[in-house]
Amino acid sequence: MSKMNAFYAQSGGVTAVINASACGVIETARKHKDKIGKVYAGASGIIGALTEELIDTSKETKTTIAGLRSTPSGAFGSCRFKLKSLEDNKAEYERLIEVFKAHNIGYFFYNGGGDSADTCLKISQIGKKMGYPITAVHVPKTVDNDLPITDNCPGFGSVAKYIAISTLEASYDVASMCKTSTKVFVLEVMGRHAGWIAAAGALASTDDHEIPIVVLFPEVKFNQGKFLKNVNAKVKKFGYCTVVVSEGVAWPNGKFLAETGLKDAFGHSQLGGAAPVVAEMIQAKLGHKYHWGVADYMQRAARHIASKSDVDQAYATGKAAVEYAIKGHNSVMPAIKRISNKPYRWKIEMAPLSKVANVEKMMPKNFISADGFSITKKCREYLEPLIRGEDYPAYGKNGLPKYVQLKRVMVKKKCPNFKIK
Amino acid sequence: MSKMNAFYAQSGGVTAVINASACGVIETARKHKDKIGKVYAGASGIIGALTEELIDTSKETKTTIAGLRSTPSGAFGSCRFKLKSLEDNKAEYERLIEVFKAHNIGYFFYNGGGDSADTCLKISQIGKKMGYPITAVHVPKTVDNDLPITDNCPGFGSVAKYIAISTLEASYDVASMCKTSTKVFVLEVMGRHAGWIAAAGALASTDDHEIPIVVLFPEVKFNQGKFLKNVNAKVKKFGYCTVVVSEGVAWPNGKFLAETGLKDAFGHSQLGGAAPVVAEMIQAKLGHKYHWGVADYMQRAARHIASKSDVDQAYATGKAAVEYAIKGHNSVMPAIKRISNKPYRWKIEMAPLSKVANVEKMMPKNFISADGFSITKKCREYLEPLIRGEDYPAYGKNGLPKYVQLKRVMVKKKCPNFKIK
Repeated sequence: MSKMNAFYAQSGGVTAVINASACGVIETARKHKDKIGKVYAGASGIIGALTEELIDTSKETKTTIAGLRSTPSGAFGSCRFKLKSLEDNKAEYERLIEVFKAHNIGYFFYNGGGDSADTCLKISQIGKKMGYPITAVHVPKTVDNDLPITDNCPGFGSVAKYIAISTLEASYDVASMCKTSTKVFVLEVMGRHAGWIAAAGALASTDDHEIPIVVLFPEVKFNQGKFLKNVNAKVKKFGYCTVVVSEGVAWPNGKFLAETGLKDAFGHSQLGGAAPVVAEMIQAKLGHKYHWGVADYMQRAARHIASKSDVDQAYATGKAAVEYAIKGHNSVMPAIKRISNKPYRWKIEMAPLSKVANVEKMMPKNFISADGFSITKKCREYLEPLIRGEDYPAYGKNGLPKYVQLKRVMVKKKCPNFKIK
Repeated sequence: MSKMNAFYAQSGGVTAVINASACGVIETARKHKDKIGKVYAGASGIIGALTEELIDTSKETKTTIAGLRSTPSGAFGSCRFKLKSLEDNKAEYERLIEVFKAHNIGYFFYNGGGDSADTCLKISQIGKKMGYPITAVHVPKTVDNDLPITDNCPGFGSVAKYIAISTLEASYDVASMCKTSTKVFVLEVMGRHAGWIAAAGALASTDDHEIPIVVLFPEVKFNQGKFLKNVNAKVKKFGYCTVVVSEGVAWPNGKFLAETGLKDAFGHSQLGGAAPVVAEMIQAKLGHKYHWGVADYMQRAARHIASKSDVDQAYATGKAAVEYAIKGHNSVMPAIKRISNKPYRWKIEMAPLSKVANVEKMMPKNFISADGFSITKKCREYLEPLIRGEDYPAYGKNGLPKYVQLKRVMVKKKCPNFKIK
């Protein structure tokens, strides 16, 4: 293939390390200037390709690109946008080809989760279907850890580390207070369908130091009686208890906990609040004083306490994506393969994108304890290496991390305007 | 004074660095064995003195005590318990004297906020009023930064650092998503009456990188119209906006945005849930998609990202308290005196406890911007040094901080049982 430019975009909910993957892509492309010209990043993901809003990453300094490795969020902007099938929206594919052609783009790197893998797969096929050859490689990213094939997903290790540490720290806090005040702390974490993030909360309890933690997984139907009994037993034994609840936990009728019950002072329903619902339930039925927190964006943006394993893997998948592409591999994704647990060793392997797209990986049954409220030894062995190691960003004199900002020099438009439907 | 033992206790809501003060007290006492015998710590604060549940800190190793410096929460247990006046509950004071006498306790170190300063003051007076001489020194602690006299309060710098960083990180996140998804992120922080913690959120926006942040202080009466207009203007200009709301923000009629009806042991209303109220309001009136988080205990337990200034000052106040006591100073508190901003220099000065007890320090008017939604340059100059520097705990192979646990060897009881009313 003659030398062509590359398109890179970030998709879906961002993470603490998606920019580390971007760093891997851009730095590796810069090392292969014989094969890849410039890397153009989509402003706000694939939307940037449709609207021809392309950020010229060649205008960013080496230092800035290196700084992406320790900057959270999506530096180029992300989007929640799923391409329809070729049959349903041919105009969008024609537009993409128009933009790719205009800017001599022959490589497509898409950094996202399951939906994005599907988009990437569709793009990889336009060569055959529409006569525009493009090499499309997916770079895995999701805090939810729900991609198949890959042993784990970049983005997850850091949110898991944040949740494990926050659960540990908040548990220390409530243990201090429980004699006369708060006895139960409820922490709400992300994970609409898969309980991987909630599972990380259980890591705070170890053989050296048992901490009474009850985890509510979206994979387990919520049984209020059993749950309250478990919490109460822990409060009796330890004086306190910490509950880690996934936002996706649902009643047996399928309704999310967060949709029910609690109203604010003005009678408005509080949405997205499983934690207050669980906390109020504990107060009403058991009479224990509670506190609750909702980690929301803080958990997935917490680059300040990113897992070193995670940062390394995010970078490595970005790097491998470029290496695959210049070797001509299309419709693939770099996946993480675990070689051993002790010591933790891993490598990057090529996975076919068709097996990744639109498949959601739930917690295996043997990762959830028999009572449904904790994790098994097997799960702990899987999770612990993923939160291992610290990778601190540099700090300024103002006490804040030095996260980079891009110049965002836009590539001159060459195509007519295009309206996204 | 002949050699006597010391009593140390932690009081009120704990912090990321109250154990660093404990470390300062115990390590300094160990250096003055000619003056101070053993340090007995109250199990669950002053309650431990009343129930004669005393933890013998001499049984803890040097390494464990040193490890307290980087362990969050109250290692000895804290309590929300306010001694009544001598007139109202003489029995409790007589009981304290009984326990102090039985264990040869001549020093009383109380580590807490405004209410605790009051308790400490009362104890310091029982020598004169009830004929039991005891040297009582207060060690300042509160995340709320609302103690008078001292320039700032140990515990605040770390929560401020956590909130500034969380605001920065979540703002990066929402900036990535705003094109097609979330446009406003609302973060709820602690601070019932004083807006110091909320103010720290504004530090995330700097001269180098302007971030659209709207702060809601408890000191400023909530004006819904003005607030929504401000948020909307920022969304228009930047594409997104971050709101930092103090739990203590109230409507013009005085009712908290987040009233739950529950009260704590001091009779303060228990709050929680201003964020969802604000977020719903933004959705209903402006139509912007939102996310919200509640930092709750995570913010004050976040030892993993403690401010170095704060850890140093927490230790220094603990150390100074012991040094004051062995010099015979009673009814005092080590206060932090700021010597200069650039470079930030400070020292410890002695303050009379009578001027500290029961006084709450609000944000000065010239620290809040004219529109009521941000901080002034003066405030920034005050706050920045307090979040400066990182003081990371050691980490284990399991990816978690190595927080210490005490052996908690209890001192043998010598007094009859006592029931707290």
